[in-house]
Amino acid sequence: MELPVLINRLRSALENNTVQLLQDQLEDVHPADYAAAITEFSLEHLWMLLAALRRAEQAEVFGYLPAEVQVALAIRISRRKLAPIIRQMSSDERADLFNRLTAEQRETLLPALAQAEREDLLRLSSHQEGTAGAIMTSDYAILAPDINVLDALDVLRREAPDKETIYSAYVVDADRKLIGVVSLRELILAPAAMLVDELMNHDPIYATVEMAQEQVAAMVAKYDLLALPILNTEQQMVGIVTYDDAMDVAAAEATEDFHKTATIGKLDGNVKDASIGLLYRKRVFWLVILVFGNIFSGAGIAYFEETIASYLALLFFLPLLIASSGNAGAQSGTLMVRALATGDIKLRDWGSLLAKECLVAGLLGLTMSFAVVWLGWWRGGYDIAIVVAATMMLVVMVGSLVGLSLPFLLSRLKLDPATASGPLITSIADVAGVVLYFSIATWYLGL
Amino acid sequence: MELPVLINRLRSALENNTVQLLQDQLEDVHPADYAAAITEFSLEHLWMLLAALRRAEQAEVFGYLPAEVQVALAIRISRRKLAPIIRQMSSDERADLFNRLTAEQRETLLPALAQAEREDLLRLSSHQEGTAGAIMTSDYAILAPDINVLDALDVLRREAPDKETIYSAYVVDADRKLIGVVSLRELILAPAAMLVDELMNHDPIYATVEMAQEQVAAMVAKYDLLALPILNTEQQMVGIVTYDDAMDVAAAEATEDFHKTATIGKLDGNVKDASIGLLYRKRVFWLVILVFGNIFSGAGIAYFEETIASYLALLFFLPLLIASSGNAGAQSGTLMVRALATGDIKLRDWGSLLAKECLVAGLLGLTMSFAVVWLGWWRGGYDIAIVVAATMMLVVMVGSLVGLSLPFLLSRLKLDPATASGPLITSIADVAGVVLYFSIATWYLGL
Repeated sequence: MELPVLINRLRSALENNTVQLLQDQLEDVHPADYAAAITEFSLEHLWMLLAALRRAEQAEVFGYLPAEVQVALAIRISRRKLAPIIRQMSSDERADLFNRLTAEQRETLLPALAQAEREDLLRLSSHQEGTAGAIMTSDYAILAPDINVLDALDVLRREAPDKETIYSAYVVDADRKLIGVVSLRELILAPAAMLVDELMNHDPIYATVEMAQEQVAAMVAKYDLLALPILNTEQQMVGIVTYDDAMDVAAAEATEDFHKTATIGKLDGNVKDASIGLLYRKRVFWLVILVFGNIFSGAGIAYFEETIASYLALLFFLPLLIASSGNAGAQSGTLMVRALATGDIKLRDWGSLLAKECLVAGLLGLTMSFAVVWLGWWRGGYDIAIVVAATMMLVVMVGSLVGLSLPFLLSRLKLDPATASGPLITSIADVAGVVLYFSIATWYLGL
Repeated sequence: MELPVLINRLRSALENNTVQLLQDQLEDVHPADYAAAITEFSLEHLWMLLAALRRAEQAEVFGYLPAEVQVALAIRISRRKLAPIIRQMSSDERADLFNRLTAEQRETLLPALAQAEREDLLRLSSHQEGTAGAIMTSDYAILAPDINVLDALDVLRREAPDKETIYSAYVVDADRKLIGVVSLRELILAPAAMLVDELMNHDPIYATVEMAQEQVAAMVAKYDLLALPILNTEQQMVGIVTYDDAMDVAAAEATEDFHKTATIGKLDGNVKDASIGLLYRKRVFWLVILVFGNIFSGAGIAYFEETIASYLALLFFLPLLIASSGNAGAQSGTLMVRALATGDIKLRDWGSLLAKECLVAGLLGLTMSFAVVWLGWWRGGYDIAIVVAATMMLVVMVGSLVGLSLPFLLSRLKLDPATASGPLITSIADVAGVVLYFSIATWYLGL
């Protein structure tokens, strides 16, 4: 159903007092769409529309609501009404909500949960943000190795309603150490009397709780997994990260890297909803830093004031020379930042990439020199043409090599290579461009 | 198993002529790892190591091999040996391989396939690149609405070995029109005698063959789907796109957008393997275009030559003023490009975002003016300080508003908003910076 149609249906249900019929009328609507539709209403109506659904669906829809709406509901709706929904939520979404509440609000929420849920919640929300532990869910299905396929299917059928997935089941020993993984597909194809131990894969792919979440997402993508088991330092199974959460992490990481390449700080949530103060804070830091970086370019110009004064025509070419240097640098820098983020290249590849970049940048420099030499000749004659062409060749190469190397350098220093943003590389390339241009001019024109 | 360990195992198997034992020794190794390991060997050894596996595993490993290795094998290995593997491959991977072969090589491959496979292959490879049709697979499980749950489970069990997934089953009518979807989880929880029609969701999420692949990936992520059914223009079911392919598409689209924001053309595959010629071609176009864009900045400087000649101290501030304008523009442009790509904002949001940007950019401009006014005073005295501060305020605002608006304008013109790259915005901001700076200076200093 299209979103506007759905919203109209909900509005007329509210007006006609037929909200209680919605659970049957709209049972085939995807919870993500229902969540998007009810977000258009006031908090009071939103809650009426949510409460009209069946319990399990309430929890699902709640999980798709924007974070700030979840928090607003958690604060406004009485604990007695909200607790059943929160109990039905998947453990990772519940932990996310919990982390967004104030200490005081958490204290109100906790007593509404059963002992086991409370412990699970506190355990999940204790992991550091950005790690596998912080995004994993503890609602996974486990099997013992010594039961047969028929019994295993029975276990999964019984556990299905409470688990995030039953399509992958994890086989653990008495110590809860992960010893294998088996898929529901393999189970339903296998002979009923076969032991799980004979059927399972004994060398499962896994990650550890403290692994960075982008690495976890990359593993899920690389191995086409439905879910990745997460182990603690004792090799015990403590959770899974499902493919849908991995997709969200990958998208969020890409957005963060995008913003970084334009010197914008980490911005959670939609830019449309971001406050003016937040946007200001995330942008101002690097803008100011780079002003001071650009003072060096200014100082370079000031140093060559005499050359400039006697050959003002040189100034005509200044913008295009320094911009070309920065643009070439932004290109090679962005290629490296993205390839390092996706794992396409490693730190050890720097040498071979540098060698290749010298050739690519050389060709680019030659082309660019050819593009400007005519311009130089037309505006300033033979000598200027030579200076401009030679400078172009050099600055394109310098810019490219700085752009290529900076992400590796940052990575080597254990900093995020994405900090090697376009603007940072451009600023460095600008300084190099000013100095090279006027040095060559001073020398060649004999000034 | 770690990759170096696996490679050593394979090497010693080759040396000791025990390759035939690998299928049992390494059956728990993930096909992606096996593929990565055998890629380290020569094509001849690679083939021996691949042929040593069981047939179904051969096809899986083959699917994980880099595209160029697949093509090399398809050309080098005799049709009789390769055909069984290609027949076992999933239909979307087979179509990808087929699309990479020359017309002549395709002619060799086709006769090796059965009639039905041949038709399926030709149908799949006929879809335009970048569409849902080009990435979908035709190996999906279908059910009739009028069978009961017990029979449905039986159908899925029978079809499991040949289907990409049996966790989602698609219910079609006699015309192959999609009328519902049901998950394996729902099936194993439902009473055996219940009809599929009663159990299924009657309003399934779907996409159409000609939909852009990034939209398909976004739908899979939004609705947390395992697979998205693809319909033709007659609403008939023709394929599915699975979550793992959607993840790959999302990553490739993010990479393409990253590269675009630095004016690099679409680059398939790993930058490490890209040839010098390819890298040159993908980078040279915009570099040269932007040179001509920067001529306007040069012309601006030339126009104000008199002002500059009489106040050379002004030049000191030129780099930092135009860089700040470009940096602020790159920030707002990147925020918009990414938010438009993820669907966080729509074309209609331009007005409200513009209003907010005016305030954010105003605050940023004030901060930046404050940062440079002292510098202006120190380098050039009171008058210069005023000119520099006023220019900074203006150029940060102009840069930000250009950066914000350009992606919307391009999107409105049905062009990719990512073309509003940092370098393009910087070039426009540079021209505005030069003209504003020297205009203000000429006017205020009474030159």
